[in-house]
Amino acid sequence: MPAGRVPGASVLLNSFQTSGNSPGAARRPGCRHVGILGFGAVGSAVARRLTGHDSIPILQLTHICDRRAPDKRARQPEALSTLTWTDQFDDLLASDVDIIVDAISGAEPSVDYVRAALLAGKSVVTANKQVIAHHGQPLLGLAERQGRQLRFEAAVGGAMPIVRTLADALAGDQVTRIEAVLNSTSNAVLSCMEATLCAMDEAVADACARGYAETDPSADLDGGDAAAKLAILCALGFGLKVRPSDIETHTTRRVVPDDFEEAVRRGGTIRQIAYADFDRSNSALSVWVAPSFVPRSSLLARIDGPGNAAIITARYAGTLTMTGPGAGGDAVAAAAVADLIAIARDPAAVVPAPVLVDPRTIQGLSDSKLAEAV
Amino acid sequence: MPAGRVPGASVLLNSFQTSGNSPGAARRPGCRHVGILGFGAVGSAVARRLTGHDSIPILQLTHICDRRAPDKRARQPEALSTLTWTDQFDDLLASDVDIIVDAISGAEPSVDYVRAALLAGKSVVTANKQVIAHHGQPLLGLAERQGRQLRFEAAVGGAMPIVRTLADALAGDQVTRIEAVLNSTSNAVLSCMEATLCAMDEAVADACARGYAETDPSADLDGGDAAAKLAILCALGFGLKVRPSDIETHTTRRVVPDDFEEAVRRGGTIRQIAYADFDRSNSALSVWVAPSFVPRSSLLARIDGPGNAAIITARYAGTLTMTGPGAGGDAVAAAAVADLIAIARDPAAVVPAPVLVDPRTIQGLSDSKLAEAV
Repeated sequence: MPAGRVPGASVLLNSFQTSGNSPGAARRPGCRHVGILGFGAVGSAVARRLTGHDSIPILQLTHICDRRAPDKRARQPEALSTLTWTDQFDDLLASDVDIIVDAISGAEPSVDYVRAALLAGKSVVTANKQVIAHHGQPLLGLAERQGRQLRFEAAVGGAMPIVRTLADALAGDQVTRIEAVLNSTSNAVLSCMEATLCAMDEAVADACARGYAETDPSADLDGGDAAAKLAILCALGFGLKVRPSDIETHTTRRVVPDDFEEAVRRGGTIRQIAYADFDRSNSALSVWVAPSFVPRSSLLARIDGPGNAAIITARYAGTLTMTGPGAGGDAVAAAAVADLIAIARDPAAVVPAPVLVDPRTIQGLSDSKLAEAV
Repeated sequence: MPAGRVPGASVLLNSFQTSGNSPGAARRPGCRHVGILGFGAVGSAVARRLTGHDSIPILQLTHICDRRAPDKRARQPEALSTLTWTDQFDDLLASDVDIIVDAISGAEPSVDYVRAALLAGKSVVTANKQVIAHHGQPLLGLAERQGRQLRFEAAVGGAMPIVRTLADALAGDQVTRIEAVLNSTSNAVLSCMEATLCAMDEAVADACARGYAETDPSADLDGGDAAAKLAILCALGFGLKVRPSDIETHTTRRVVPDDFEEAVRRGGTIRQIAYADFDRSNSALSVWVAPSFVPRSSLLARIDGPGNAAIITARYAGTLTMTGPGAGGDAVAAAAVADLIAIARDPAAVVPAPVLVDPRTIQGLSDSKLAEAV
């Protein structure tokens, strides 16, 4: 394995201030040290998994980095508060942490942190769809050159193992189509409207109350979140370089209760569908995210609340489907923990970076309010 | 990696006779040589995948071993007939093949072949559920000691990636329940009876005609096939040592058309269900295979023909579901090819053998004709 390099000054830091001062943990033999970057819903769930009564012997959480480290640390139980806390990412880089869990949101500044971590010889597990959608290929190439790993099962589909399925189970096959529900907030909102025929504002408020939506659910309802995830799936499934901005998105905000009444009359319902079909012979990609009529018989119609689902068609394997919780700290943390275990079991694993090509053509939907799925 | 040892005389051979005489293929750089043992539906599908126009650059098929090698070779296209064919397993062991695909049926003699292959320094990909169900743990231990890999995604669920999901995606989680349709023949027979209300004999004949059933479908209908697969899933999901004979099985042969009429009245249908629930606090396993009433709303009721499906409940990830083609040469070959690629990408990968324990108690069903699933 190439030796890690510590870049130091090359890292763009935000306003984090140093506060961590606890002594370094003693390293258990055969155990990988883990640091968590971002102590929100996902980061704290990973921390609880790694320090609870059913913690994982080969993983030892030693560091937590969060811009509000002092405040958050004070509210934690002893198993967590006695770890090393810091609000300086450089402290994670300089530590003996082997794997960093990136649990912050947004492509920036996450891309700088992930790059710096890999350059410092750390492996990285990220739940951040934006950093993989926008910067995945160069970061995966960097990981390979460094002899380290960058894993991102938690970035798409929550606990639903769609990254592994496309990258591993369908390796060598020719994936031709992906139809999926990838945004938990939109699904919770639409399935609430379906059940109660309420207005969207009410459904959004309900989803917020249940913890399935953020105060500003624009990226979820407008399709940006699903488009980032779909761009990742196009890379994994089709070997294509697709920018999230290449994906035509139609907002879900325009769906009204009358649309559900009409959908029921037609024998179905409405879901936010992420669709990608790749015609390999012409290198032609059809890709979009849009609220869509889905017949009742489809798997995608039967996913309620924050569930995610996918129907994947491959030339040889045939049609595979999967469902799982797409949101929730524990569910997303389960995916991140699986990635941590994969790295801890085999720190020197060879994970070749994907070779991606541009599709010859990309097309979206004709301009209709409701797409037709499945 | 430990050096491979060639055991030679320790291998139990059947009546294979030497006939292969083609020259060894030139080794392409960075490429793993593959030998196929058993040129039936799965073996020939793997062979076509590795020699077709969309073959996989890092995998080069060089050897085919089948007890009827001369006959079968004569009927193949040039891409296959020009490989090295043999009816002697020792020829595979002595060759420069890196990975052997075990595509023969039954625990015996497959276990001897897999053991000999690992001892000879080969990695092994098997589609053989019996060899893994009965001998998986010692063989996986041997593979680990040899620094080689034994992969078996194709042994359970066909193209449905349930082995990877339990072993990798749910690593570190606590799986508590698995409910599944794992036997394609039974599912094809029962879904045919459901659709036409025909007698079982007619449904079996139909499944035979479509290639979903063998002339003697006893192991399928009586539950032995699903029990072997379920024993594997109990090891992967619960970390339990379960013999197929520990699993109570109820035959599907006693299902009659009237049962379907009654099931429809109750709002459901009948499927052969493989069920396992593990109460970790008491180390109590409930496990059975039986024809079961399944409500129409269940995923398991909606799988027709040779499809497989599974509902997996885990403490942290929540409930994951999956479906996929459970039979068919191409579908099963897709799983085997994915395993071949995993080995070829990272021949030195560390795959720790599972540590299995005995459950404190194992119980089956009360003696009812139809179980209740989901």
